[in-house]
Amino acid sequence: MHIILLSGGSGKRLWPLSNEIRSKQFLKVLKNDAGEPESMVQRVFRQLHAAGIDTHVVVAAGRSQEQSLRIQLGGSADLVLEPDRRDTFPAIALSCTYLADVKKVPLDEVVVVLPVDVFADLEYFTTLLRMEQAVLDNAADLVLMGIAPDHPSEKFGYILPTAQRDGVYPVRGFVEKPDAVRAAGLLAEGAFWNGGVFAFRLGYLMAIVAKQRPDGDFATLLAQYGTLRKISFDYEVVEKATSIAMVPYRGRWKDLGTWNTLASELGSGCLGKGLIAEPTGDNHIINELDIPIVALGTRDLVIVASPDGILVSDREHSTTLKKHVDTFTAPPRYEEFLWGTARVIDSLPAVEKVPGTFSTRRLNIPAGRATGALVDAKAGLVWVVVSGTGLLTMDSKEVPIQSGTTVSIAKGQAHALVAHTDLVVLEVQLPG
Amino acid sequence: MHIILLSGGSGKRLWPLSNEIRSKQFLKVLKNDAGEPESMVQRVFRQLHAAGIDTHVVVAAGRSQEQSLRIQLGGSADLVLEPDRRDTFPAIALSCTYLADVKKVPLDEVVVVLPVDVFADLEYFTTLLRMEQAVLDNAADLVLMGIAPDHPSEKFGYILPTAQRDGVYPVRGFVEKPDAVRAAGLLAEGAFWNGGVFAFRLGYLMAIVAKQRPDGDFATLLAQYGTLRKISFDYEVVEKATSIAMVPYRGRWKDLGTWNTLASELGSGCLGKGLIAEPTGDNHIINELDIPIVALGTRDLVIVASPDGILVSDREHSTTLKKHVDTFTAPPRYEEFLWGTARVIDSLPAVEKVPGTFSTRRLNIPAGRATGALVDAKAGLVWVVVSGTGLLTMDSKEVPIQSGTTVSIAKGQAHALVAHTDLVVLEVQLPG
Repeated sequence: MHIILLSGGSGKRLWPLSNEIRSKQFLKVLKNDAGEPESMVQRVFRQLHAAGIDTHVVVAAGRSQEQSLRIQLGGSADLVLEPDRRDTFPAIALSCTYLADVKKVPLDEVVVVLPVDVFADLEYFTTLLRMEQAVLDNAADLVLMGIAPDHPSEKFGYILPTAQRDGVYPVRGFVEKPDAVRAAGLLAEGAFWNGGVFAFRLGYLMAIVAKQRPDGDFATLLAQYGTLRKISFDYEVVEKATSIAMVPYRGRWKDLGTWNTLASELGSGCLGKGLIAEPTGDNHIINELDIPIVALGTRDLVIVASPDGILVSDREHSTTLKKHVDTFTAPPRYEEFLWGTARVIDSLPAVEKVPGTFSTRRLNIPAGRATGALVDAKAGLVWVVVSGTGLLTMDSKEVPIQSGTTVSIAKGQAHALVAHTDLVVLEVQLPG
Repeated sequence: MHIILLSGGSGKRLWPLSNEIRSKQFLKVLKNDAGEPESMVQRVFRQLHAAGIDTHVVVAAGRSQEQSLRIQLGGSADLVLEPDRRDTFPAIALSCTYLADVKKVPLDEVVVVLPVDVFADLEYFTTLLRMEQAVLDNAADLVLMGIAPDHPSEKFGYILPTAQRDGVYPVRGFVEKPDAVRAAGLLAEGAFWNGGVFAFRLGYLMAIVAKQRPDGDFATLLAQYGTLRKISFDYEVVEKATSIAMVPYRGRWKDLGTWNTLASELGSGCLGKGLIAEPTGDNHIINELDIPIVALGTRDLVIVASPDGILVSDREHSTTLKKHVDTFTAPPRYEEFLWGTARVIDSLPAVEKVPGTFSTRRLNIPAGRATGALVDAKAGLVWVVVSGTGLLTMDSKEVPIQSGTTVSIAKGQAHALVAHTDLVVLEVQLPG
C-alpha cells in the first residue's frame, strides 16, 4: 500500500500558535504514550507505524512546510512539495505522478490518501488496510472511508451507503453540509460522514490526470503546477466517479482544527509556565513565553501565548477565531529551521521614535548544525554570541566565535555559521 | 496648609503591572480630562492643584520609589525618603520632623495627611480645606475625614460621630472592621468610614514625637529610622487622642488596589495592542507587550500583560490575586530610571542548556539624559547601539557611539553614558 498524506494549509484557527510557517499539524501540543509532547503529524506517523503501514509514505505539502516536515519526520517519508497551494486534486495528482513516474510504482498497486491532521484511534489506520483490500477485490474504482457519525453535524459531508457485502458498502450518493433537520434524517437513514480518505489503484487516478496532462512526467507537472485548476478531489474525482464503495470506521475521529476541539485532547491544564487558580470550569494554558501566565477564577478558557500574540478565548467561541485574526499581518516571530530556531525578542513597535525597521532575534543553533551560506540583504546586522562556540565564515574569512564575540555583518554580506557546541546568538538588525 | 502624601508599599495586588519597583500609584492606567494616561499619583496632584492646595506638599515614600516619583512629579513636591518601610506613624513622624526642622514650618500651622492612592472626586480635596479650618477653629486636636459609606463594608474602620456643629462632628469612638450585621447597624447609627486622612497642628504631632525622640533633629531621626517601632498612625495617635473631630465627605471614594476596583475606572476596554471580540460581559485588556492580545467570547475578565507576566482574571476573583503571585520571585523585568527605561527582553529560562545566568535588556535613553557613573559587578556585558548617538565613558576613555557600535564592558568596569539623541541600546549580559 502507498500512502499519500495531505499536509494542509496553515490557517489561523489555532492562532497564536499556528502561523504561515508553523501549521497546526506541527504544533507539539499532544502527548504520546510516554507523556512526551508530540505533534499531529508525529502522532499520525506513530499510528501508521503501529498499524504496520508506514513503509511507503509520501507527504504532499507546501514548500513553506519543508523544514518543519524534515525536522519532525526525519527521512521517514518522501516529500512532494507543491510550488503553491492549489487544493486537494492537484496535490493528489502531483503525488500520484511522483509515485508513477519517479518511484516507478506499478499502476495496479493501491494508493490511499488521507489528511495529516486527523485525530483518531489506531483502528482508523487498520481500516486503511480494509480499504486497500476492497480495491484489490475490485469492490469499486474508488473506496472511501465512512466515519460513523455521533451527532447530526451540519459541518460535514455525508455518504449514503446501500446494503453492505463483507463490510464494504456500495455508495448511492452524497449530501454536502445538510441543515440540522436533514442531518438528523441522514443519521436515521444510516448515512456516514465523508472523512476525506480515498483508496484507488494508481492507474485509476493516472488515467484522470492523463486526460488533463497527457505526458505523465513529474518534472513537467511540477513546473506547470501553477497552471492547474484549484479544485478539490471531491469535486474533480468523487463526484464524477461511477463506481464508489465505502468502508466504515467506528471510533474516535476529530478535526483538531480549533482550540475548542484541541483543548479536549490536551492532557494537563497547563503547558509551559503558568498557574490556574480558583478555576470555575475547565481551563487550559499553553504558554511558549518565558513569563508566567496566571488564570484566576476563570471558566472554560483556552489561554495561549506565543511570540506572535496572546489568545484568551472562551472554548465554545474559539471556532470563530480565524475571522478575528485574519487581519493580523505581522510576520511570524518564531521560526524553526534545519539549523535551529530563530525567535524575535524585540521589534520596532515597542520602541518609540526609532526611524526605520529594527528587530532583535535570538538564534539557537544546536552543536553540529550549520546555517549554510546565506545573504541577508535587508539590513546591517550585529551578532553577539551569548554562549557556545563555533566558526563563522564571512566572505572567505573564518572567525572562531565564543561567548562575548561580537560580529558586524554588512547589508548583503554572505555569511555562514557552524556550531561546535550549542550556540546562542543574539542578532540585532539595525535600522536602515 | 502643609500636605503629607503617604506613598504606600508596593504589593502584588496589581500584578503583573505592579512590582517592588512599580507600585500601583505609578501605573498610568487612568485617564485625565484630556484622555491622556495618568497614574494615581499624577491624578492626586492634578486634583490638589485644582483645589488650590498643592503649594506645600511632602511625599513620604520608600527609597525604591524615588526615581518613579521624580519622573512623575518632577519638582512639584519635596520627597521624604524612608530608609525602610515602618508603617504610617514613623513615616508621618519623619515627615513632620522634616517640616519642623528642615523647612522651619511654625508649629501652629496645620498639616493634613492623606494617602497617595485615593481615587475620589475634587470635593474630597476641598474637604481638606474644611478640615484645616476645623483645626484652626480648635474644634479638636485631631480632625479626621469621615467617608459617607454606601454599603455595610466589613473591610473598613468606622468613625462614630456625635451631633455636628457647623459641619464638624465630635467623635465618640471607632469600630475596626465589623462583621456584616454590625456594619449594617453602624450605617443605621450614622457612622462614617475612616478614610485615613488626618489634620492637626504641626506642634501637636511634634509633641508626640518629642516624647520618643526628644532632640527633634531630622538628620538624627533619619539615621535612627530603622529603630522606630512599626506602628500605624491609628494605633499610635488616633486611639490615644482625647480630642477628635470629623469632617464628612460624601462622594466617590475608592481603593483602586485590586483589578476589580481598578477596572471600573478604566475608560475603554483596551489599553495597548488588543482586540475584544464577541464579548459576553465587561472585559478589560491592559497590554504593555508589543504582541497583540485577543479576548474572544469572554465574560468580565481583566487581562493584563507586562514584561513580568500575564494575568487573566475573573473580575470578582481578582481580590485574591496577591496570595497566588506572592510566591513569584523573579526580579522585575521593566524598570524606570531618571536616565530612561530598561526592559528585559530575553532571559535564561527560555534558553535551554545554557549554564549560568543570561539576560538581554533594551535600554531607552532619551536625548540629553545621562546614566551617571555606574559599576556592574554582576557579569560581563556587551552593548549594541541600535539607534541614536551619544558618548560612552569607560574608565577614563571616551567613545562616541552610534547605530551599530558594539562595546564590551568587563565585569566590574565603571562606565557612563550620555545620550545626544534618543538612544536605544541592547545590553547582553553574558553567562558567567
